[in-house]
Amino acid sequence: MSLLSLDSAQLQQLMERTRKDYEELQAKGLKLDLTRGKPSKAQSDLANDLLTLPGESSYTDAAGNDLRNYGNLEGIRELRELWGKLQGISADQLVAGDASSLNIMFDLISFAYTFGTNDSQRPWGQEETVKWICPVPGYDRHFAITERFGIEMITIPMLEDGPDLGAVKELLQDPQVKGMWVVPMFSNPTGYTISDAKARELASLEAAAPDFRVVWDNAYGVHTLTEDFPEILPIIDYAEEAGNPNRFWVMSSTSKITFAGGGVAFFASSKANLDWYLDIAGIRGIGPNKINQLAHHQFFGSAEGVRSVMRRHAALLAPKFDAVLRILEERLGEYEVAHWTKPEGGYFVSLDVVDGTASRVWELAKDAGIVLTKAGSAFPLGQDPNDRNLRLAPSLPPLSEVETAMDGVATCVLLAALEKLSA
Amino acid sequence: MSLLSLDSAQLQQLMERTRKDYEELQAKGLKLDLTRGKPSKAQSDLANDLLTLPGESSYTDAAGNDLRNYGNLEGIRELRELWGKLQGISADQLVAGDASSLNIMFDLISFAYTFGTNDSQRPWGQEETVKWICPVPGYDRHFAITERFGIEMITIPMLEDGPDLGAVKELLQDPQVKGMWVVPMFSNPTGYTISDAKARELASLEAAAPDFRVVWDNAYGVHTLTEDFPEILPIIDYAEEAGNPNRFWVMSSTSKITFAGGGVAFFASSKANLDWYLDIAGIRGIGPNKINQLAHHQFFGSAEGVRSVMRRHAALLAPKFDAVLRILEERLGEYEVAHWTKPEGGYFVSLDVVDGTASRVWELAKDAGIVLTKAGSAFPLGQDPNDRNLRLAPSLPPLSEVETAMDGVATCVLLAALEKLSA
Repeated sequence: MSLLSLDSAQLQQLMERTRKDYEELQAKGLKLDLTRGKPSKAQSDLANDLLTLPGESSYTDAAGNDLRNYGNLEGIRELRELWGKLQGISADQLVAGDASSLNIMFDLISFAYTFGTNDSQRPWGQEETVKWICPVPGYDRHFAITERFGIEMITIPMLEDGPDLGAVKELLQDPQVKGMWVVPMFSNPTGYTISDAKARELASLEAAAPDFRVVWDNAYGVHTLTEDFPEILPIIDYAEEAGNPNRFWVMSSTSKITFAGGGVAFFASSKANLDWYLDIAGIRGIGPNKINQLAHHQFFGSAEGVRSVMRRHAALLAPKFDAVLRILEERLGEYEVAHWTKPEGGYFVSLDVVDGTASRVWELAKDAGIVLTKAGSAFPLGQDPNDRNLRLAPSLPPLSEVETAMDGVATCVLLAALEKLSA
Repeated sequence: MSLLSLDSAQLQQLMERTRKDYEELQAKGLKLDLTRGKPSKAQSDLANDLLTLPGESSYTDAAGNDLRNYGNLEGIRELRELWGKLQGISADQLVAGDASSLNIMFDLISFAYTFGTNDSQRPWGQEETVKWICPVPGYDRHFAITERFGIEMITIPMLEDGPDLGAVKELLQDPQVKGMWVVPMFSNPTGYTISDAKARELASLEAAAPDFRVVWDNAYGVHTLTEDFPEILPIIDYAEEAGNPNRFWVMSSTSKITFAGGGVAFFASSKANLDWYLDIAGIRGIGPNKINQLAHHQFFGSAEGVRSVMRRHAALLAPKFDAVLRILEERLGEYEVAHWTKPEGGYFVSLDVVDGTASRVWELAKDAGIVLTKAGSAFPLGQDPNDRNLRLAPSLPPLSEVETAMDGVATCVLLAALEKLSA
């Protein structure tokens, strides 16, 4: 029964009940946080073996190098091989760094801005304008990087099978369009995964800029919520086959697999791109923390070892996602005041409420002690043109808190919708 | 007996003997490496406790934060306090990062280049020219950073009590002079330490550029070769007192204290400078590897704990430095064909040979299987105008190899001098 089909008496009645629900919610004095995609304590516990690794007298790699000392900018071979096997990437095309892939993404754009990429005619910083394609809703920290470099962000829709490539094709005729953000699997915040056909198309689209780059941030490549691990698409191969070998900067990390703050990040790309990156990274420093890489190799043991850890994450996460979806359906389904994604992996549920009410929902929730990611944060500059989207991050709080918070959120969504309708 | 005071018969005789020495040296088929300031295996062993730290169930800081998760861009408080005590810096002015201070130095210059510093009128990259003061001989990796950013490097002499400030004073009248490299203690490669008077003067010199920055790279602040730990000068306080609070970017790290490739790097500065840095670093990433910081805090225990480790390093390093100095004196002293520094800390001996022969010495050594850091490498662009300077790094090889290598180096120095004299 859609809100719009209610008569005014019914609406009045629903409004009264919802206001009462909201008052009761406020009276609870909650202090709940659904803001960030952080692993829970129980998830971090899964990697506690790392706290004593690599272990006494364990400090050499398979080739016998002393990992305690300087050197090895690419990262240790055996971890790159393990990770390459997991991701379908040759170890030769894979660099293992310190903990944060965000750091590497920033550096890639910074290096391109200051020095130009290996395919650039001039540094991006010397271009009149640099434009960037941003599928929305998307990842706020991505957009914060391009914003910081003064890059003009052009939004396109993120669809269920990936970014709207019709829009991308059009935009790529502009030589000032130098880049694009893509989270190919279990995307932040929608949970959408790009289809094989779209990935191949993106690899082969003609681009006016020879130095057009896609930051292919596969942050959730093995972050399933089910028993299944969808195939990780060999995007570097697709690009190579399509004659655009340098198009993709491919990111991944163990951040939500082992320790979010102390894992290993990976950067994969064509040899030419890696050479370009390493040439500058080699001025920036001497090498990553290889002891932590050794510890990670020991902890995982194999590519299957990573999947095994991820199954245990899924077991902890799936009930929380189930609760979010269940409560949204139970509380809001009949009124047709919201749409939400039903992710099979990743860290988020993307919730679209009645146009023009997302900020109000955020405010209502906040006033009831439930902190949500700010409305609009999944859009460049934090501006959702429809004031419609909210990102839900249920991973961190315990299940009972997720349930309480989501019930509260549902009340706020309904109340905001009713307020709008009666305005 | 200086070479110059020998008559031609004596010279001839010495030449013959030295040629014979060199032939014998070549016949040994050596394969020795004195190139880089890397800790030896025995030194790395001193920190092996880190291989099992922070230890089972140990993942919170003193404030109870879970260090396995995201967050805390400044680094964990207790390690900053420990390190601050050691360095005479308030924990509030100290950021603890990942392993490499070189990374942070690159980022500081990169951020200034792209965005400008907190005191800049425009980004450095938008200046007509940016000039940088480089005391020589100095650290090749410093010069590689400024070279990469296209910064014009102006050399000034590094004297026994610090950089030639007369020259600096002059240069600072130019508003395009935006920065300066300084290794204040046990400098690379001379081992010289800046005097308190010079440090105060550098803090108070008038600079035409409001955004003039000194990268004060205190890489060897506790790296004594004796029993003594010279005072670490409170340079940030000096700058504050002199009315130039934002002048110094102060770097240090545990790289040559625990693991060269897997330690913790620190950045200290005024609050305004830290705010500027963290604002951009917070776009670049979410936080450093705090588990490694916790492990380091446990390993050291206290500031005195750091000094205790350093005494054990000194016990391993001092015999190697003694051997270098002894052999240079024994083999070359009487001929007056070389000058060398006599460091009481740090990782290097700076060797000045007869003008115009450093490259030849390097070549002779290489052909005898002894790899030295390339002649000129302690100068910007690798160009030593006098072709005079060689950097000796005796830390990595075992003592017996240091002795063999240095005896060989002495032969090469003498042979190159004799060749020049007889040319």
